[in-house]
Amino acid sequence: MQKITILIHCEDQKGIIASVTNYIAGIEGNIIYLDQHVDANENVFFMRLECEFSTQNWDLELIKKDFQANLADKFNMSWEIYTQEYKPRMALFISKYDHCLYDLLGRYSAGELPLEIPLIISNHEDLKGVAQRFDIPFHHVPFTKNIKEEGEKQQIALLKEYDINFIVLARYMQIITPKLIELYKNRIINIHHSFLPAFPGAKPYHSAFARGVKIIGATSHYVTEELDEGPIIEQDITRVSHSHSIEDFIVKGRDLERSVLARAVKLHAERKTMVYNNKTVIFS
Amino acid sequence: MQKITILIHCEDQKGIIASVTNYIAGIEGNIIYLDQHVDANENVFFMRLECEFSTQNWDLELIKKDFQANLADKFNMSWEIYTQEYKPRMALFISKYDHCLYDLLGRYSAGELPLEIPLIISNHEDLKGVAQRFDIPFHHVPFTKNIKEEGEKQQIALLKEYDINFIVLARYMQIITPKLIELYKNRIINIHHSFLPAFPGAKPYHSAFARGVKIIGATSHYVTEELDEGPIIEQDITRVSHSHSIEDFIVKGRDLERSVLARAVKLHAERKTMVYNNKTVIFS
Amino acid sequence: MQKITILIHCEDQKGIIASVTNYIAGIEGNIIYLDQHVDANENVFFMRLECEFSTQNWDLELIKKDFQANLADKFNMSWEIYTQEYKPRMALFISKYDHCLYDLLGRYSAGELPLEIPLIISNHEDLKGVAQRFDIPFHHVPFTKNIKEEGEKQQIALLKEYDINFIVLARYMQIITPKLIELYKNRIINIHHSFLPAFPGAKPYHSAFARGVKIIGATSHYVTEELDEGPIIEQDITRVSHSHSIEDFIVKGRDLERSVLARAVKLHAERKTMVYNNKTVIFS
Amino acid sequence: MQKITILIHCEDQKGIIASVTNYIAGIEGNIIYLDQHVDANENVFFMRLECEFSTQNWDLELIKKDFQANLADKFNMSWEIYTQEYKPRMALFISKYDHCLYDLLGRYSAGELPLEIPLIISNHEDLKGVAQRFDIPFHHVPFTKNIKEEGEKQQIALLKEYDINFIVLARYMQIITPKLIELYKNRIINIHHSFLPAFPGAKPYHSAFARGVKIIGATSHYVTEELDEGPIIEQDITRVSHSHSIEDFIVKGRDLERSVLARAVKLHAERKTMVYNNKTVIFS
Repeated sequence: MQKITILIHCEDQKGIIASVTNYIAGIEGNIIYLDQHVDANENVFFMRLECEFSTQNWDLELIKKDFQANLADKFNMSWEIYTQEYKPRMALFISKYDHCLYDLLGRYSAGELPLEIPLIISNHEDLKGVAQRFDIPFHHVPFTKNIKEEGEKQQIALLKEYDINFIVLARYMQIITPKLIELYKNRIINIHHSFLPAFPGAKPYHSAFARGVKIIGATSHYVTEELDEGPIIEQDITRVSHSHSIEDFIVKGRDLERSVLARAVKLHAERKTMVYNNKTVIFS
Repeated sequence: MQKITILIHCEDQKGIIASVTNYIAGIEGNIIYLDQHVDANENVFFMRLECEFSTQNWDLELIKKDFQANLADKFNMSWEIYTQEYKPRMALFISKYDHCLYDLLGRYSAGELPLEIPLIISNHEDLKGVAQRFDIPFHHVPFTKNIKEEGEKQQIALLKEYDINFIVLARYMQIITPKLIELYKNRIINIHHSFLPAFPGAKPYHSAFARGVKIIGATSHYVTEELDEGPIIEQDITRVSHSHSIEDFIVKGRDLERSVLARAVKLHAERKTMVYNNKTVIFS
Repeated sequence: MQKITILIHCEDQKGIIASVTNYIAGIEGNIIYLDQHVDANENVFFMRLECEFSTQNWDLELIKKDFQANLADKFNMSWEIYTQEYKPRMALFISKYDHCLYDLLGRYSAGELPLEIPLIISNHEDLKGVAQRFDIPFHHVPFTKNIKEEGEKQQIALLKEYDINFIVLARYMQIITPKLIELYKNRIINIHHSFLPAFPGAKPYHSAFARGVKIIGATSHYVTEELDEGPIIEQDITRVSHSHSIEDFIVKGRDLERSVLARAVKLHAERKTMVYNNKTVIFS
Repeated sequence: MQKITILIHCEDQKGIIASVTNYIAGIEGNIIYLDQHVDANENVFFMRLECEFSTQNWDLELIKKDFQANLADKFNMSWEIYTQEYKPRMALFISKYDHCLYDLLGRYSAGELPLEIPLIISNHEDLKGVAQRFDIPFHHVPFTKNIKEEGEKQQIALLKEYDINFIVLARYMQIITPKLIELYKNRIINIHHSFLPAFPGAKPYHSAFARGVKIIGATSHYVTEELDEGPIIEQDITRVSHSHSIEDFIVKGRDLERSVLARAVKLHAERKTMVYNNKTVIFS
């Protein structure tokens, strides 16, 4: 059995679902998962399918060509097809915080994430030892205002060298350059330690404490040029009270950051996210 | 525009989705919602669709006949079709607890529930005043061990008289008779004040307190002959601690019971539930 | 047995807890609940006690005088003492939304709220029937930009006439005047339909939808002159997804608004809230 | 400044709080945290305090002796006093599941847990590499029905050798012997992969799936001789639906197990748990 995942989006039109499901049936595929969504305001159709094929005469490139010619052209579809074996290659960008790093590497080592981690980039040397523990190449790329361009150049060279598909900022404390954002559009995932759009920018736990909120949150989103304004992938919250100090907020927040980032990374790697109009469609 | 909801289940077979969506396209329908599920263990296929039709030449009975002949027969489907206008008629069975009653009647009066409530039956007179406040016919049907048969007869007569589609036990403290369960199979909704299957039967808050749990729950389920063993529709929980007494559990539990029951009632009335093998499929 | 609740706040000093608990022991009281909090940044001490006294020689006014002379003066305390029998009198301000109104009146009628509701004020006639259902005096007080002063005058007169202790804005769609806020400082509770400080002001569900959040919330707070900036009493959230429309947000939000407002009202009526520095201490 | 934590329990009596707080004030201590609980059914008083002392003339042993003589004897108290520096020594028992192991070692390495981990014991060799990654001594102690006594002997010898204060079963798939339970009474923490008391024993995810629950859970508890019946420390839940397979339950459950166990371990290490009557008091 060969299993593939298909992602489609296009203008909403009558008969799309019938055409797609007919097409799959026509090439002897069996649909084992189908979810679709119509953005009624924008008139856009989104679909995610998982299909099984008997492996006889299986040829992915042929299927892709056929799919384009006999289905996609008709509806002017944007689409992607992935085989089950395909594991995207992820780079981790880190600074000095290690909790998200330990969490992601632990999950990765425990076999929970369908991806490869061939590269860790940090603007500090501090966490080199953690990377070594998990046998992952670690590269120190200094990055400050003055050496931005040099840093960006090194980052891009490493990403190319290691053939990286997407980037995860695991509490990386630097701004990503517009050029890198453009290169990895909708493929850079950040974790912000607040319930966005509340408390964007620096020191959100301090702001949350000052405001006296009863709930704090964390938000994982794709990085765009507007700081903390990118498409939200996942959010979660936890209760706090007057009895909690800022330090307590930070400790409780670490748990949120960990789990929200891990869920976003998994959703992305499983091809369950689609971005449109600065928002995400997250398939189940 | 005419909008209908279609529920289907049958043995899982290749090409069902394509056939159904084709069929809808063929009769000029536009699918605005589609969700499906395959129970892989039981090899059963479930589907829920919402479709829009232009009202020209619209004839529901004709569509039903056509659906049976040209689609359902082929796949040996069980199916139901509902128009948007259809509001199921719900009877409330109550005893002395009023919190779920007030909640459901408040939501009903606020226009949140797509159903009619033409009948309230109680084995006590206590809450007659609440029914009167909301202008809903109230019938006192005594029900004890000794007069079970007489009570059942009266209940069934009233349900028939008021043309009731489904029954909600809003903390009704009596066992429903097998005959009534059979008459309203998968159409009697109960709220049990525990996180089933923990603490079935009487006094679940007392048992939860004795066990020292840190979380209590409530469960809404369809009634079957096995007490508290029917298909679960909805559950929810809330945190408790050592500082809470049994009375605190009961007070906190009332909030759970209210909201879990209201959600289950709404799901049922919106035709988002399907029962199979003592479990539910709950469409989104 | 006579049961009283004591609330204290003052500058933090060594030995306060010992002095207070000694004092209670000295007047033959039995402490059945004690919770305290120190705001370390502001150096303020907060305490809530529940104590039991045998009723022999019980005289509340005497105790209050004695408490002031022998304890409060020493530490320069602000304090309040309530007997268990005391039920604060609450006024409901409403406009056209009825879901919070039905919920609060349902809970009130079911005996869940330790308070009286002798007065409902609305700037519209629409919900007069709901008030009548629950036998609560309803007063229509028009309130628009042009007749603000007249409206405020009528409101204040009614609040005085009905001897109102605190006000609940159950989706009241008008701004409260500074004079009324001053009169009922930290005694006007509002429900805002967002997770503050995200989306203050008008149409928060629309803004949340536009931003593509994965979680929406509701916030209950004391009203201050700064719109939606007052001390937060309670917040809660629910998950949403790309599949939810703005209308879905609103429907889901109604459930949040209901329960968050009801919890805040209960906390206030049970004397479990203290306000300091635009934040609340919420005792358990 | 010297900071200590005091845990007390005894029969409930009038004036205990006053006596304790007086006593602390008398020895020039400053109470920075106080929480107490009375189990009204059992008439038992529980208290947890954190106090600060100036370090002049500080002598812990003297304080302990004084505390016993001048306070504890009077009320027949059971009590414990810990300095802030004290870090309990924890042994991890594991089998083949690595997710809780990675999580706890990651948190430990990130400095989140106030404890030492000098010892890992496993009945399999599989996870030796993980222990080595984190530089923690790993001992393989085979344990099956036939060699129980030998296994127990080795376990106890290792626990003694490494001076272990408490044991965490991080998905250790063997029954702990009564002798070891007795030696480490209320000091062995287990994680069970269900919402106890639902689904005790083996394969709880399979049972939960079969029952069609809408919520699954995990429970951390102290180990007693009755399997899965010990005092519950912490529980948490996550939502599931008809669309989730048993495998999905297991994957989602791993996340619950991780976080519930980590929270229980932290509560225990911070001396925030007290056990009485097969239930826990968990201080905030």
